[in-house]
Amino acid sequence: MFTGLNAFPLTPLDEDRIDEHAFAGLVERLATAGVDAITALGSTGSYAYLTRDERARVARLAVEGAGGVPVVVGVGALRTAHVLELVEDAQSAGASGVLLAPVSYQALTPDDVHGLFEDVTRELSVPLAVYDNPGTTHFAFTDDLYQAIAALPHVASIKIPGVPGEPDAAARRVAHLRTILPAHVTIGVSGDAFAATGLNAGCDAWYSVIGGTLPAPALALTRAARSGDAARAREVSARLQPLWELFGAHGSLRVTAAIAEHLGLVAPHSLPLPIRGLGEGDRADVARACELLDLGAGNGQW
Amino acid sequence: MFTGLNAFPLTPLDEDRIDEHAFAGLVERLATAGVDAITALGSTGSYAYLTRDERARVARLAVEGAGGVPVVVGVGALRTAHVLELVEDAQSAGASGVLLAPVSYQALTPDDVHGLFEDVTRELSVPLAVYDNPGTTHFAFTDDLYQAIAALPHVASIKIPGVPGEPDAAARRVAHLRTILPAHVTIGVSGDAFAATGLNAGCDAWYSVIGGTLPAPALALTRAARSGDAARAREVSARLQPLWELFGAHGSLRVTAAIAEHLGLVAPHSLPLPIRGLGEGDRADVARACELLDLGAGNGQW
Repeated sequence: MFTGLNAFPLTPLDEDRIDEHAFAGLVERLATAGVDAITALGSTGSYAYLTRDERARVARLAVEGAGGVPVVVGVGALRTAHVLELVEDAQSAGASGVLLAPVSYQALTPDDVHGLFEDVTRELSVPLAVYDNPGTTHFAFTDDLYQAIAALPHVASIKIPGVPGEPDAAARRVAHLRTILPAHVTIGVSGDAFAATGLNAGCDAWYSVIGGTLPAPALALTRAARSGDAARAREVSARLQPLWELFGAHGSLRVTAAIAEHLGLVAPHSLPLPIRGLGEGDRADVARACELLDLGAGNGQW
Repeated sequence: MFTGLNAFPLTPLDEDRIDEHAFAGLVERLATAGVDAITALGSTGSYAYLTRDERARVARLAVEGAGGVPVVVGVGALRTAHVLELVEDAQSAGASGVLLAPVSYQALTPDDVHGLFEDVTRELSVPLAVYDNPGTTHFAFTDDLYQAIAALPHVASIKIPGVPGEPDAAARRVAHLRTILPAHVTIGVSGDAFAATGLNAGCDAWYSVIGGTLPAPALALTRAARSGDAARAREVSARLQPLWELFGAHGSLRVTAAIAEHLGLVAPHSLPLPIRGLGEGDRADVARACELLDLGAGNGQW
């Protein structure tokens, strides 16, 4: 579950309520495509904006729709007590694992974050992936903290926020992480533009935003890299460059929601307000990129 | 309510539940001291960590304990729909005003934030203060956005995150804000170390962290500045310098909680986990600063 392509579906809203039908459709589409795992309620799944009840419901729908594909559920929240409730709900829903980010409002110290993972892993009965996403959590892990947290029970993977762009530097970075982490803890790259470089450098998994909406190209990239065909992985990533540029300009969430809306996979205005989503001009760019890449609802040929 | 000393009490926890008795004590202490207004559930009041029910309860306790002193209630949340619920609860509790920060997980655009204030002010029946606190919200207002939001109905004050340290530059900054804001919108300084400079530069209010726990020195500073005695305001601020240094090192919330715990105003470990509060050594520094400044529970002579 923490190797290969781990795909992050959107949690689409319709009139500010969870669009359960569209969400189930996204999950079933991922299972059909053959992704290795599905993470519901990641950043791409807008977990931070949803109530406990909404999150419990989404976790259940994900497990139901995944048809046996392992489902990881994001359990991040600002308060430890709330994380523990979400862990309970995710486990009751049948999640195979959980993903935990140290979300912050007041800046957290390394001690706070270590304490959070200690308190949560003590209560867990499924494996946990550590979610390092400084762009949204505003907390930056150090390697020392990775090492201390990886030693806690149930910790099975670290979702790193990217790798150096230069292939040799990326390989050195991943090799260094291997020396400080236990062998059973996988390393997963995130930041979709880094996926090919990260997988080619030896990352075990790609925690993928685009894979949650467009599984075909994400699978092609992952399968190539994991089978040793680095050139082909780079080629797929290069073909997706128009998307990486849009991600850089607007953030991956807004762009991915616009893609899903453009393809009719979700209703318009699928993001939680106050996030307004892309404006008209930017949506036209997204539509053009989709056509250029032959990203119809069937995902085109990859 | 949006001029003079607006004091922000902590929302103390005890064993991870709201310590209602201690909170009521903090509020009554502020009313007795004669602060101009009380803001419950500001950043200092840990609003972002609490459930809707907890926040509704805290709002009620604040209004009950304030004995007629106007109470402002923080209504920030990640999702617009939740802000609207919190506004409803604050108004039902008898709040005289609300304070709204554009809290973010995904980075917000100026359009998102303008839309948020538009959607919220449309539903309001009490005045609103705009809460600009980039250290916690990770959103930076521009002057253009201040101006656009200040033109919305019910907007009555802007809580600015500080002023330039140099007095003339601070006065120019406040004078510039006056030219772009309607006359009925007050300007309140925050960042306690900037309070004397900001009030001396012409800010109408001090949105004060320390004033919520130690009202006597905060009142002395505010009254001096507002009566034109800039030198005396600077003198009080200089005396409090040991606190400003601790704020700079550890953040105002952790230090203020440690002061309140040291003075016995709240129980130990009063902050919501994962925030662990200060370690032993830092607590000793806080205790020393309190003694040096004669900050007993009675607040000493100012």
